[in-house]
Amino acid sequence: MKHTISALVKNRPRVLTRIAGLFARRGFNIDSLTVSTTEDPNSSRMTIVVDADDATLEQVCKQLSKLHDVIRVVDHTGQSLVDREICLVKLQPSRDRRSELLQLVEVFRADVVDIGGNWLTVQVVGGPSKVDAFIGQMEDFGILEMVRTGKVVLTRGPRTT
Amino acid sequence: MKHTISALVKNRPRVLTRIAGLFARRGFNIDSLTVSTTEDPNSSRMTIVVDADDATLEQVCKQLSKLHDVIRVVDHTGQSLVDREICLVKLQPSRDRRSELLQLVEVFRADVVDIGGNWLTVQVVGGPSKVDAFIGQMEDFGILEMVRTGKVVLTRGPRTT
Repeated sequence: MKHTISALVKNRPRVLTRIAGLFARRGFNIDSLTVSTTEDPNSSRMTIVVDADDATLEQVCKQLSKLHDVIRVVDHTGQSLVDREICLVKLQPSRDRRSELLQLVEVFRADVVDIGGNWLTVQVVGGPSKVDAFIGQMEDFGILEMVRTGKVVLTRGPRTT
Repeated sequence: MKHTISALVKNRPRVLTRIAGLFARRGFNIDSLTVSTTEDPNSSRMTIVVDADDATLEQVCKQLSKLHDVIRVVDHTGQSLVDREICLVKLQPSRDRRSELLQLVEVFRADVVDIGGNWLTVQVVGGPSKVDAFIGQMEDFGILEMVRTGKVVLTRGPRTT
C-alpha cells in the first residue's frame, strides 16, 4: 500500500543521507520524495511516498523519528489531505494532431508554458491520479521529455501536521 | 551561486543514498530536491538545487555521473529554463483581513483549495522567485503551516536534457 510521510528536519547536510539510508536498508523503493525550505530557515520539510505494508512502515517511522536532526515524522495514512504535484511535459505532436492535443490541455486545465514550430511544453497541476491520467493521454502524442515534482500534502481542515 | 542539476537515475533503493552522501561529504547544503517517476518505469528523475561555486560543482557533477545507477547528469547553469514549483500554505487570517488576503491570492493567480470558518489553504504555482514573493506576502497573515515541492525544470525550446 502507498503511504505518504511528512518529515520536518533540521537543515544539515547529513540528514538526507541518513533518511535515504534507512529506506534503502529496508529495500523500500521510494515513489517520490521532495525536500524544500519551510517558513523557518533552519528546517526543511520532506514529503515521501513509499510502497510498504503498514506494520513495516510503522517501524520505519519510529526509526526515522529517532534519527539525529529529524524533528517530527507523520504518516498521513487515513487522513484527509490536499495533495498536489506539478508535471512539465515536452511534446512533439504531428501537425494534424496539434489541435486535438490543445483541447486535452484545456480539459485538464493544464497550461502551455513554452511553444515553437513543432513542439510545446505543458504544465499540469493536481493530485497524482490527475497527473497520471494526463501523462497517459499525452503518451499518444510523443513525449520528448517530462519531469514531475512528486506530491506534497497538507491535512484538510485547520489542524497542522 | 545557485545551481540546478537534473539527474536521470535507475529505480534502485541505494541510488538516493549515494547521491545524498556525495553532496553531504562536500558539506553542500541542498536547497531543494525532488525525485519522481518518468515516462520510463525503470528510471527516476531528480532535480537538485544547490548553492556552490562553479569549479566545485563541476567536480561534483563528474563524480555524480560516475556513480552506480546514475544514467545522466546535467548542470543547467546558463541554460534558458522553464522552472516551476508548487507551494501549499495554510493560514489563519483575522476576520477583518480576510478579503485583503483573498485579493492577494488573486494577484498571484493562486487558488484557495480548502477553506473553513477562520482558516484556509492556498496553492500557488510558479518559479521560485514568485513563490518566495507570495510566501513573503502571506507571512503577515499568520502562516499555520506550509510545504513546497522545490522546483523542477525543462530547458526552453525543442531540445531535451
